[in-house]
Amino acid sequence: MKPVAVGLVHSPVLDKRGDRVVSAVTNVDIHDIARAARTYGVQRYYVITPAAEQQRLVGSILEHWCQGHGSRYNPARKEALSLVKVVATVQEALEDWNLFCDAESDCLLTSARAENSIGIEEARERLLEKPALILFGTGHGMAPELFERGWPVLSAIIGRGDYNHLSVRSAAAIILDRLLGRTNS
Amino acid sequence: MKPVAVGLVHSPVLDKRGDRVVSAVTNVDIHDIARAARTYGVQRYYVITPAAEQQRLVGSILEHWCQGHGSRYNPARKEALSLVKVVATVQEALEDWNLFCDAESDCLLTSARAENSIGIEEARERLLEKPALILFGTGHGMAPELFERGWPVLSAIIGRGDYNHLSVRSAAAIILDRLLGRTNS
Repeated sequence: MKPVAVGLVHSPVLDKRGDRVVSAVTNVDIHDIARAARTYGVQRYYVITPAAEQQRLVGSILEHWCQGHGSRYNPARKEALSLVKVVATVQEALEDWNLFCDAESDCLLTSARAENSIGIEEARERLLEKPALILFGTGHGMAPELFERGWPVLSAIIGRGDYNHLSVRSAAAIILDRLLGRTNS
Repeated sequence: MKPVAVGLVHSPVLDKRGDRVVSAVTNVDIHDIARAARTYGVQRYYVITPAAEQQRLVGSILEHWCQGHGSRYNPARKEALSLVKVVATVQEALEDWNLFCDAESDCLLTSARAENSIGIEEARERLLEKPALILFGTGHGMAPELFERGWPVLSAIIGRGDYNHLSVRSAAAIILDRLLGRTNS
């Protein structure tokens, strides 16, 4: 399997009313998704926000856990958070990841309302061919412009009914397990 | 499939040093696991803590989202949090769940260090026969006494290496998807 990165998009995303916004970074999103990424061998976790103040906030969290007291208190957390890189835009994440891989990556979108989507098996097959950056939206999902670039969209997580309001942390964990878990038994 | 409940154990659990403690309830554990439970058709989510102050805290969170302002602001969250019931002990959760099901349930333990464990397929087969209460530990995992009762233990989540430090929220989401997801493709 080729290298995989994940990105958590805080802009452009939609809010509850469908307006384009920059969502706030959430501490537990950084930790939980970094831990899941590390568990499944993901090599980089991009926290994507153009807001300078939010970038500084993430920077100070990373400093605490990767260099400061947290790194000695909980080395396992350091191992996970070392994967995190803060960038301003999806484009910047993709360029950085392509440089890292020295290859052109797939950009794979996720959505709770995915149409024209690809299944897990197809996504796994693509991962055998090309590195990938898997994007997760915060707020009420990534803005439509990201879905107009011809990038594949992973089919939505279906449970046992029509309730589809998982946290982005849970959705990311489930998708990484489905895509990258060695076995489901 | 028979009815399934989940329980989040705050006592008896171990801390970092291996001492028995009562861990603190975490707001995001209540929300994330309730949302995952609702997604996968889980019928009850027991938050298990003997600490009266912690029980009151959970009660006030539930009141906000199930009856108060939150219930009108976010009805989907109400739908998830309506599954939550606060109980003092694992025994109380099991008795309440057996009453709810009018049957004797399996109690299924989870652990990041599971030995003598059963796989997902075996657990799925058991769910065809008997209702189940699936227990997740907070802190550094459930205390040994819960593993000495002859209850089956689900095999640990293996990613792509030896890092096994998922948050309990992510682990619960992955296990519910593996056990109760209709399809993995």
